[in-house]
Amino acid sequence: MNKRMGKQTVRLAEPVIIRGVASTVGETEGEGPLGGYFDCVVRDPLYGEDTWEQAESRFVQENMRLAVKKAGCSMQNMDYVLCGDLLNQCVGTTFGIKDFNVPFFGLFGACSTMGEAMSLGAMLIDGGYATNVLAGASSHFCSAEKQFRFPLPLGIQRTPVASRTVTGDGAVVLSRNGKGPVITEITTGKIVDMGVTDVNNMGAAMAPAAAALIAAHLRDTERTLQDYDVIVTGDLGDTGRTLSATLLEKEGFPMDERYKDCGLLIYDNERQDTHMGGSGCACSAVTFCGYYYPKLVSGEIKRMLFVPTGALLSTTSVQQNQPIPGIAHGIVIENMKR
Amino acid sequence: MNKRMGKQTVRLAEPVIIRGVASTVGETEGEGPLGGYFDCVVRDPLYGEDTWEQAESRFVQENMRLAVKKAGCSMQNMDYVLCGDLLNQCVGTTFGIKDFNVPFFGLFGACSTMGEAMSLGAMLIDGGYATNVLAGASSHFCSAEKQFRFPLPLGIQRTPVASRTVTGDGAVVLSRNGKGPVITEITTGKIVDMGVTDVNNMGAAMAPAAAALIAAHLRDTERTLQDYDVIVTGDLGDTGRTLSATLLEKEGFPMDERYKDCGLLIYDNERQDTHMGGSGCACSAVTFCGYYYPKLVSGEIKRMLFVPTGALLSTTSVQQNQPIPGIAHGIVIENMKR
Repeated sequence: MNKRMGKQTVRLAEPVIIRGVASTVGETEGEGPLGGYFDCVVRDPLYGEDTWEQAESRFVQENMRLAVKKAGCSMQNMDYVLCGDLLNQCVGTTFGIKDFNVPFFGLFGACSTMGEAMSLGAMLIDGGYATNVLAGASSHFCSAEKQFRFPLPLGIQRTPVASRTVTGDGAVVLSRNGKGPVITEITTGKIVDMGVTDVNNMGAAMAPAAAALIAAHLRDTERTLQDYDVIVTGDLGDTGRTLSATLLEKEGFPMDERYKDCGLLIYDNERQDTHMGGSGCACSAVTFCGYYYPKLVSGEIKRMLFVPTGALLSTTSVQQNQPIPGIAHGIVIENMKR
Repeated sequence: MNKRMGKQTVRLAEPVIIRGVASTVGETEGEGPLGGYFDCVVRDPLYGEDTWEQAESRFVQENMRLAVKKAGCSMQNMDYVLCGDLLNQCVGTTFGIKDFNVPFFGLFGACSTMGEAMSLGAMLIDGGYATNVLAGASSHFCSAEKQFRFPLPLGIQRTPVASRTVTGDGAVVLSRNGKGPVITEITTGKIVDMGVTDVNNMGAAMAPAAAALIAAHLRDTERTLQDYDVIVTGDLGDTGRTLSATLLEKEGFPMDERYKDCGLLIYDNERQDTHMGGSGCACSAVTFCGYYYPKLVSGEIKRMLFVPTGALLSTTSVQQNQPIPGIAHGIVIENMKR
């Protein structure tokens, strides 16, 4: 059966159920506007571990186990685990899931990783290869600052267009069985390189990819913004959201208040001095799992386009004056109760 | 339809055709025993670029384009590209494929990445989501030494159990249509951590995962070694192959000369002083594409179990005294002509 709806979009033969979710975040996220929505707020940034990297792995491990438990499953029922993170060679993920004893596909999509994990996980179930898939993504403010920017104790002042990496892990249990909102369509992103080189302005680097993905999705499905209760990008932040909305308007897809960005929802810049907003793989992952999933369950949201966004760079590529290409992946999630 | 054959293995409903392949390698690989089998040997390790990382991206770009051409396709026909590499944040891949304009899933499975790419690619086609998928993996001796070990100009002496990262890129075009050997079954690996900590002995770190994958595959399919013309691991090298064969014998699956390792095939240690053998994502990728694919086409090999192997570490995890977990992915490739 051909399930393709256009160059970048596929429609699943059977909707895949998001049977359960979990979100675990750090203290700053817990104190933000969405603080009350998360399953778990861990005040110790080291989460009882010795290093930031091991702390990130602990977030992965505890939160993915919680997602499985909340879905009413056991780890043994998981046919695959799909996840990734921002650290070199994805060690946050490796050391988080290494004892799960579940077949594993490691992903790297920078901050778009949750989109990759949910896309591939849903296709593995709908394709007949799995009954249950555990999918997730993580990031940690301290491990990310250490790796990509400056050691935290230096107290380097951040530029006005900087964002703050979200500490946490978001995870979903996708299933052929059970109850919950469903994944119905998947639009897979292409890399978009507009030559942006400002390593502090991730929103600008990712905005063209986000706009291209949303436009491709609306073209492939022959829909408009009005067909969605909400379109949510991952971590564009203030500048990035404005840029992508401008690009979308030029493409003939004007956005309105239904277009949201997880990076703008998760912090209160006035109070928390987070500048452009949140970023990191966990930004979209925890915002989806904590904030949006319950709205999909209740039916407050009937149809959502979830668009995790990623900036594909390393410190090496930046030092070598390479541009910062972006990517975004789109997933349609619906409440199908009638 | 449930396509599962056991906890880790799935059988495709329709075999997926490997319609074309390409392999591009560096000078040392070109001078090795398999030198005559590769499509392209690039004598300049910089491949005309300014940095090792950009050279790796050039290998990716040129070789993936070549695979598409050799398959008689155009890049526009590719529904997805799936690939990855060893560099921080997979920049070898990003800057190699960024201009392909094809929906992209980035993967990180260390040196097992070719196994991930072929597994997921085949399932995307068999599941009805794609007609053609471009899958590949790359590594580069110089970018890997710089990132994981020592700057090359220091001339650091390598330990006797060290392996040499293969420079190159291997890529396959998977398709619903056309002619060629086919992928029939996929066994997906779990992370195996036996507490190995010697960063110079990757073979030992990966051997338990390789043995576990082969044993799981044979159990799931209720077959023995005798049902395969060849079982080929990715880059265990001399020590690693011996260790995994010992572990497999203990599990009740004695191996014989049909069990090969790409890391042992690609170099001539006597002549090239490569110690344990080849490693890196490209090791299994170019050996499969260059050496084994033609044997599958000709029918010299009727059924092969291809097992790319990966060591999941970063310099940070090693400096923090973490162990080196391993993973391996298995793909059954058959010549189905009768």
